[in-house]
Amino acid sequence: MSIVITAFERSPDGGLGLARDTRVRWALEEVGRPYGVRLVSFGAMKEPAHLGLHPFGQIPTYEEGDLVLFESGAIIFHLADRHTGLLPDDANARARAITWMFAALNTVEPPILELVTARFVEGDKPWTQERMPLIADRIRGRLDRLATHLGAAEWLDGESSAGDLMMVSVLLRLRPSGILAEFPSLAAYVARGEARPAYQRAFAAQLAINAAPAPAP
Amino acid sequence: MSIVITAFERSPDGGLGLARDTRVRWALEEVGRPYGVRLVSFGAMKEPAHLGLHPFGQIPTYEEGDLVLFESGAIIFHLADRHTGLLPDDANARARAITWMFAALNTVEPPILELVTARFVEGDKPWTQERMPLIADRIRGRLDRLATHLGAAEWLDGESSAGDLMMVSVLLRLRPSGILAEFPSLAAYVARGEARPAYQRAFAAQLAINAAPAPAP
Repeated sequence: MSIVITAFERSPDGGLGLARDTRVRWALEEVGRPYGVRLVSFGAMKEPAHLGLHPFGQIPTYEEGDLVLFESGAIIFHLADRHTGLLPDDANARARAITWMFAALNTVEPPILELVTARFVEGDKPWTQERMPLIADRIRGRLDRLATHLGAAEWLDGESSAGDLMMVSVLLRLRPSGILAEFPSLAAYVARGEARPAYQRAFAAQLAINAAPAPAP
Repeated sequence: MSIVITAFERSPDGGLGLARDTRVRWALEEVGRPYGVRLVSFGAMKEPAHLGLHPFGQIPTYEEGDLVLFESGAIIFHLADRHTGLLPDDANARARAITWMFAALNTVEPPILELVTARFVEGDKPWTQERMPLIADRIRGRLDRLATHLGAAEWLDGESSAGDLMMVSVLLRLRPSGILAEFPSLAAYVARGEARPAYQRAFAAQLAINAAPAPAP
């Protein structure tokens, strides 16, 4: 059954690969599933047709026959659950890999989202400059714990898994801020993720869309 | 195999059931698994013994034989995956229920966490009073979409599932702010969750700890 995902017609990051379709593309590449992409404009994301796929009017979505999913975490779990390669076979190791997916999305990403919101939504507010260091320190608190856990290991728990795919994707959002570079072991961990051929293909695919000349108005 | 979870020795909410052990207790009650609780102080949460269970030094954790998990989402998924009652049997319906778990944790909860952070971490800052309405509006944006999706249905996708358990748990955190009450259909949805016998038992169990007289210093 063919798979179709949605992505921004034009990602706000201009092709850095930080939009959430890149994570899903990466997982699709890891499990070797071809996929189609339907691009949606910011306007179309809030229209009924797209809201029927994604109740919160965001990207990515995932269509496969009768199945419609949204949320990058859910889509990647779905792929990992149905194909080999993204989750370990051992039941306990599998549960731990899933734990890292949730940790990436619910413990590490929220303070990073605060930074994104401060910069792009509250960027014009008089308090933002003074708040930024507080937000950055909260992120550093999480990264410090994560770096301690990772230690000298290559991946968070044994072999690389969907947990690493998600954590690397979340950490990548920090690179423009410079905070990731303050944690060399985490920067190296992210680089290991980016070096995977599946990530390279996913990144190139989103870049081909987002680095193209803007469509005529 | 016996199950042990961790919870705050003393929850900051004084027994409102908003700490994340309540979600896990609820899921354990739904699947009918007895469990033990080990209470941890704020100090002990940052010590090596607890960090060995939870790299970010939070609660809850989950121990079952050799298996150690953290992240309420991962623990609840683990229980739902191994017992009947929290996820539908139909494969597509199951994937959609899991989608709602991720939506609760990664789309609805992050702006709510911003509100909690503004109140309790930045509560003494000069900008907080002026920021609060902005944060509340971002939450309202998400709740508006959620209410539209729910419509007149009882649960988010057919029968109640772990997706509803998680969404109700996340929305409960909003009740003290008054924002939940602005969305009557969502308030009723949350009340349906709270009315479940499994939730009632979970709530009572955490209340018994948190409403007890404070331990002697």
